[in-house]
Amino acid sequence: MAYKSDIEIAREANKKPILEIGAKLGIASEDLLPYGHDKAKVSQNFINSVQDRENGKLILVTAINPTPAGEGKTTTTVGLGDGLNRIGKKAMICIREASLGPNFGMKGGAAGGGYAQIVPMEEMNLHFTGDFHAITSAHSLLSAMIDNHIYWGNEQDIDTRRVAWRRVVDMNDRALRQITCSLGGVSNGFPREAGFDITVASEVMAILCLANDLKDLEKRLGDIIVAYRRDKTPVYCRDIKAEGAMTVLLKDAMQPNLVQTLENNPAFVHGGPFANIAHGCNSVIATKTALKVADYVVTEAGFGADLGAEKFMNIKCRKAGIAPSAVVIVATVRAMKMNGGVAKADLGAENTAAVKKGCANLGRHIENVKSFGVPVVVAINHFVTDTEAEIQAVKDYCGAHGVEAVLARHWELGSEGSEELARKVVALADSGVAHFAPIYPDEMPLFEKIETIAKRIYRADEVLADSKIRGQLKEWEEAGYGNLPVCMAKTQYSFTTDPNRRGAPTGHSVPVREVRLSAGAGFIVVVCGEIMTMPGLPRKPAAETIRLNDAGQIEGLF
Amino acid sequence: MAYKSDIEIAREANKKPILEIGAKLGIASEDLLPYGHDKAKVSQNFINSVQDRENGKLILVTAINPTPAGEGKTTTTVGLGDGLNRIGKKAMICIREASLGPNFGMKGGAAGGGYAQIVPMEEMNLHFTGDFHAITSAHSLLSAMIDNHIYWGNEQDIDTRRVAWRRVVDMNDRALRQITCSLGGVSNGFPREAGFDITVASEVMAILCLANDLKDLEKRLGDIIVAYRRDKTPVYCRDIKAEGAMTVLLKDAMQPNLVQTLENNPAFVHGGPFANIAHGCNSVIATKTALKVADYVVTEAGFGADLGAEKFMNIKCRKAGIAPSAVVIVATVRAMKMNGGVAKADLGAENTAAVKKGCANLGRHIENVKSFGVPVVVAINHFVTDTEAEIQAVKDYCGAHGVEAVLARHWELGSEGSEELARKVVALADSGVAHFAPIYPDEMPLFEKIETIAKRIYRADEVLADSKIRGQLKEWEEAGYGNLPVCMAKTQYSFTTDPNRRGAPTGHSVPVREVRLSAGAGFIVVVCGEIMTMPGLPRKPAAETIRLNDAGQIEGLF
Repeated sequence: MAYKSDIEIAREANKKPILEIGAKLGIASEDLLPYGHDKAKVSQNFINSVQDRENGKLILVTAINPTPAGEGKTTTTVGLGDGLNRIGKKAMICIREASLGPNFGMKGGAAGGGYAQIVPMEEMNLHFTGDFHAITSAHSLLSAMIDNHIYWGNEQDIDTRRVAWRRVVDMNDRALRQITCSLGGVSNGFPREAGFDITVASEVMAILCLANDLKDLEKRLGDIIVAYRRDKTPVYCRDIKAEGAMTVLLKDAMQPNLVQTLENNPAFVHGGPFANIAHGCNSVIATKTALKVADYVVTEAGFGADLGAEKFMNIKCRKAGIAPSAVVIVATVRAMKMNGGVAKADLGAENTAAVKKGCANLGRHIENVKSFGVPVVVAINHFVTDTEAEIQAVKDYCGAHGVEAVLARHWELGSEGSEELARKVVALADSGVAHFAPIYPDEMPLFEKIETIAKRIYRADEVLADSKIRGQLKEWEEAGYGNLPVCMAKTQYSFTTDPNRRGAPTGHSVPVREVRLSAGAGFIVVVCGEIMTMPGLPRKPAAETIRLNDAGQIEGLF
Repeated sequence: MAYKSDIEIAREANKKPILEIGAKLGIASEDLLPYGHDKAKVSQNFINSVQDRENGKLILVTAINPTPAGEGKTTTTVGLGDGLNRIGKKAMICIREASLGPNFGMKGGAAGGGYAQIVPMEEMNLHFTGDFHAITSAHSLLSAMIDNHIYWGNEQDIDTRRVAWRRVVDMNDRALRQITCSLGGVSNGFPREAGFDITVASEVMAILCLANDLKDLEKRLGDIIVAYRRDKTPVYCRDIKAEGAMTVLLKDAMQPNLVQTLENNPAFVHGGPFANIAHGCNSVIATKTALKVADYVVTEAGFGADLGAEKFMNIKCRKAGIAPSAVVIVATVRAMKMNGGVAKADLGAENTAAVKKGCANLGRHIENVKSFGVPVVVAINHFVTDTEAEIQAVKDYCGAHGVEAVLARHWELGSEGSEELARKVVALADSGVAHFAPIYPDEMPLFEKIETIAKRIYRADEVLADSKIRGQLKEWEEAGYGNLPVCMAKTQYSFTTDPNRRGAPTGHSVPVREVRLSAGAGFIVVVCGEIMTMPGLPRKPAAETIRLNDAGQIEGLF
């Protein structure tokens, strides 16, 4: 049997006017700012008007460590949202927006897959409602104002060797990673080293995704540390007086974007911070608004549960004052096999032994997530090549670990395939067993926070950090930043810092290479390995074959 | 009497839903892609469907050389559009979009002023419908692909010292004017000199504004010369295979944006190329579409008539196959006084003699515009301080030069104040006296084209250009670019290249400092003086005081 591609399915979608989708949530047309007929922003007025309502229940979708076999986290998020609606629940979905630049390197991603997708797929992979462009603009304004400040006399005494604020562009442009700027003589400023990151790596992105409202946004933007003086004291964004204008540029970008699934169920797609140097989940404002208009809100976190779910709970939930009522861990038989040692080329053959072996990875994620005090269900995202015996092996493993595993076939069947999962999730969420708590308190010293995550989540024996890093953490504690959570930047492919160590390794060390203070976003980034904040394009970029065909359709993007 | 500010008036506007404005033009709601409730893009389907219709009449609004006193060209464009509607004509307005970056330096501009404005003013000065962001993205993609091509083996043998394609950002950022990029070692590429311009100076902007449709857009993008090889042959954008993906990024940006005046009359605000290194008028697609849906289309061209009208006629009209039926030259009593030698501080006092003397500037523009075979009317854009005698002096001068001058009070009164101007314009446009022709033929050698403009428009005695420049022009002629029009880049403040020489000077020379080939846009830029393609921010940027107030209104932007 031949399956249709994601884009073919997306193009056949029977989209409803976005005003109808909004009406399902009780959002009046005057509170929806349309962007075309299939996208809209929710007004601040509406958001203000629902603040006194009870919250719905929050469901987090996370996953095992990703493998090249794919696990289908977003697909399951969408499928579960549709499944909940199918069984008569008022449910909605919250996911991140896609980054523009990477689409021109590799083919762009859908939002979900098969019959569990959010549309309009093409716009969501291009300019969408312009949020990321607004973030680029706000970031660029601050960049320009810093060098302008230096140019006109440098009243703040910025040390031009210690400008911490890099520039951004939403494009994979390795040539801009490291530059010297302000060349060309007196009228262009004081030459210095600088560089560009991709927009999703901007602290402005992280701030937008964590801010509660525009006032909070402006305050956090003002808190950004942009440089250090000759006396090493920090220069804040508010010293440069940029935060007001940046907020004006971000005014519309702060409003959640409403779109729909293939089954015409509502979804907010809003914000998209990097999952390494930031926390990797959609905006707080979208999630909190969703909780006011739906009884069940399905959301996801980037990478595997060791990174994504950990940061979702320790950073986003802590800061936003929200708590998941249940967590879905997505696994696939194929990914279990790879965790069990099977190469990608050999995934086609039944291998129950490898599945069983690979389940160790899943098992550890189950334990970890439970340690936050939330109930767990495993969704086995079905692939058509999975055998009965392999599926049963995963179910048995989960059963033995006190967790139910449900086969989910939304990719192939839409909500018909996720009905069972939806029922199980409702039962768990409604059971009231969740007693969510972050795994470390605000007042714990920063280094201990890192150790807590390394030992309890990664199951490492120790954290390695030289005296410079420990000293830096101490300094920040003295400067009043000790109560911030830590944002781990580590490979997503392993519990360890070695991307090749699959399964459930123990006995390893977590070396901390660098720590960075994101004072506006409100966390300390802990870098444990390479982090790439500006990707490059491959030898044959997808862009070379992207074009409009004679029917006006986009080719090559997907 | 106290007058309200532009922004106060704009905020009090009784805007109609944009679908109603579209309906006035016979555009069905399914052919309007809404961006909020007060902005919409016109679908390509609709544009295709009206191609067989007769064209309406095109009215160009241009002006004397700008002075610090202000001449009110856009205000008059809007006022005339409203006036035409008031007297029962089906009329619409076409103007340019505003550049984002400069708003953070000086306070941002309205689209018009007083009671002759286009709204929503705030959005039009911020992200609007995202067109400029799309242009930045398309430009940045090509930039990244060029360096990526060099990085992965440089199959085209690009000479990294001769990359002609600079990067862009829509921000005033002088620190980026001149940089070295690709620093940091092997993985970041081959270090080279580079630099950024502001987005409106991008050739992509000029191309978007001259392209007839998406196919033409893609072809022109492919024609861009991005670099030269070691053997000095040009490398085109299509050699880098970027034009398809760039077109995809520009797909929506190509559609004209519909907005409205304070009096709820329709306006297209679309495209905004620099008036120096490009041709400085709104998009061809907007103007041509407007001509299909309205009987009278009022548009404007950047700077004074010596630059703006000249390029509108010799470049835009020639290339687009359109022709103005009448031209309005905007003058003010105050600007005439300044041209007559009065300092700005002394403009308050009546000075009929200075007005008469300054009219020489107006007189020359009248002669010049007439030389294109189009009838002219002068609009005296009224200021409340103008005296009867001063106004009469301008009228008398025009009368003596065979042209009528009409007092226009739209700034104060809206369309009530521009009714007389509208009637006069209709009479001229309907008279059938226009026999438009560009002032030089395609086949004229490039240097002679420059001389023609310098002598016939600027009234210079000679054009000065060294052998290198003449040789470059010859080379381009041999390469097949000899039939392109020339795009003059000269100060807008004078007929000469000296911004301080007001009035109607003669006997001067026009030195050509540099020539540049914009092969995609389809013109040769002739640089006669400094041109600034990346502005800087002032000592106290407007951005420092821009903020959202407690009512959610933007302060400090206007």
